[in-house]
Amino acid sequence: MALRTRLTDRFKIEHPIFSAPMGFIAGGRLAAATSQAGGLGLIGGGYGDAEWLTREFGEVGNARVGCGFITWSLARRPELLDLALARAPAALMLSFGALAPFAQTIKRAGVPLICQAQTLAHAREAVAAGADVIVAQGGEAGGHGGTRATLTLTPEIVDYLAGAAPDTLLLAAGGIADGRGLAAALMLGADGVLIGSRLMASAEALTPPGFLDAILAADGDATVKTKVIDVVRSYDWPSGISGRALNTRFVAEWQGRENALAEPATRAAEAERYWRAFRAGEAEGTGVFMGEAVGLIHDAPPAARVIARIVGDAEHLLSNAGGFVAAPI
Amino acid sequence: MALRTRLTDRFKIEHPIFSAPMGFIAGGRLAAATSQAGGLGLIGGGYGDAEWLTREFGEVGNARVGCGFITWSLARRPELLDLALARAPAALMLSFGALAPFAQTIKRAGVPLICQAQTLAHAREAVAAGADVIVAQGGEAGGHGGTRATLTLTPEIVDYLAGAAPDTLLLAAGGIADGRGLAAALMLGADGVLIGSRLMASAEALTPPGFLDAILAADGDATVKTKVIDVVRSYDWPSGISGRALNTRFVAEWQGRENALAEPATRAAEAERYWRAFRAGEAEGTGVFMGEAVGLIHDAPPAARVIARIVGDAEHLLSNAGGFVAAPI
Repeated sequence: MALRTRLTDRFKIEHPIFSAPMGFIAGGRLAAATSQAGGLGLIGGGYGDAEWLTREFGEVGNARVGCGFITWSLARRPELLDLALARAPAALMLSFGALAPFAQTIKRAGVPLICQAQTLAHAREAVAAGADVIVAQGGEAGGHGGTRATLTLTPEIVDYLAGAAPDTLLLAAGGIADGRGLAAALMLGADGVLIGSRLMASAEALTPPGFLDAILAADGDATVKTKVIDVVRSYDWPSGISGRALNTRFVAEWQGRENALAEPATRAAEAERYWRAFRAGEAEGTGVFMGEAVGLIHDAPPAARVIARIVGDAEHLLSNAGGFVAAPI
Repeated sequence: MALRTRLTDRFKIEHPIFSAPMGFIAGGRLAAATSQAGGLGLIGGGYGDAEWLTREFGEVGNARVGCGFITWSLARRPELLDLALARAPAALMLSFGALAPFAQTIKRAGVPLICQAQTLAHAREAVAAGADVIVAQGGEAGGHGGTRATLTLTPEIVDYLAGAAPDTLLLAAGGIADGRGLAAALMLGADGVLIGSRLMASAEALTPPGFLDAILAADGDATVKTKVIDVVRSYDWPSGISGRALNTRFVAEWQGRENALAEPATRAAEAERYWRAFRAGEAEGTGVFMGEAVGLIHDAPPAARVIARIVGDAEHLLSNAGGFVAAPI
């Protein structure tokens, strides 16, 4: 069976599931596996690295995939958009930062434009930029995001779009890792979901094995919103956006002391420690972006199996949902 | 029609909806109206005030209602538990703080014990205390709460209870204000929902008219997690818990400057301003606890109408949910 929504009709896919363009994590193999499983996969363009992007698009084979960029970082390397457009992507996604002029370039190329929104105000900007799809991303999501919750942001943007842009589709993102989350998102009025953390724990993700062990061991209380990882990496994110990550020893050590970490000599020394642990896959000594849904993740099978399970469970729940409705006692 | 779950069976109610015991806001009339509408109403015992509590139980008439307390504050006025137990409440709810010995007293009286949990760890404590019902409260909730999101906390506690305490029921709370939210909560595996903010905007709530105007004007981006309101009121909340409130002028003025506000002379002067504005219902000059769901709230009808609308919309969504399941393209 399949789950049918406006999203599956519009993108001619079987299931209303996009994989999140997780920087460093969502390469060509994960994107391709997601698309082959009936969803749509997005390569994580991240901060932007032409060599990495070229290689990962090369891993896609015949699969139809899209790509996502961190908008403010893309503004410093605008040529990467052309690189992605040259691959005839199924969609391009912009997150975090001013949408113009990239939005126009993408639309002019006839490529569906996905814009990620952390607030209702962001959704208004996305509509103004001509977004074909908006992603309502709650702060329970792993990696960078805002503070609003998926559960309220999704229906509020649904209501806004019903008046302002009824043909714009909406995906819910943040906290969705199983069939229950997908079924809940559809009840909230979303046309589908964007899934990150759950697919970070899959065979095709570029997740270091040491990170995977930490992910499988963590419960949902084990993540924290933090700027520590951005500070040590010298990334200058817009205000209002922070990262959700496992509360590793490194993060806990500096949380609340970001100014001390930003002191140049300290930052240089800590960055060396950070990257050494990162390359070695030593989760406790570095930063591991991960959403609250980590408490719902207990294995790391191939992406096709993850998606089949999510869809199967959601189908079961949705098919039986009418059973809650009963005659009064 | 009605919505039937384990919760409606256990409490012999028509709809799986409890009203939140909002301090100062949820008096006897709101609790009674909720129960008469087919849910179960809880009086907001709050920090604890015998005179207020006696008066509000007196407003209940023949309705069967429960009551909720802030646990750490109840520990300073334990006699209030006896006052509530003398009313043969339909349930008693404990939130924020060590559950024993209140949990034992409540259970010994044969009254259903509801424990609110902001984390998976809290849920474990609630099971150890013998909770009959756990409320998984996400940080999108208005008033005091933690930082985890309803969307992940609910299914994670569902999974935990399935193994550890399968007869313990679970309510989802935080961000639920309409039929979409209720339907989503049921898909997540909750047995029902606890609704606060949406009922704060109802005819029976003790919400000052000036606050109501601010609530109806706000969108979901307009709330903030803050300790400012506790600091000015000299309430000493446990770590990890803060309040979600409208980002009023007063809150915005002190947010991030809590230490300066806590300086005795400043606090005394600001508290006088705060309470003057509070009594006058001048929202911008004081604190208005309110959840992110404020963006889904556009009127303040009688509670019976709020509940009928939520149930009707949820029934419609759940009855039609099977329509998402289709044969593959």
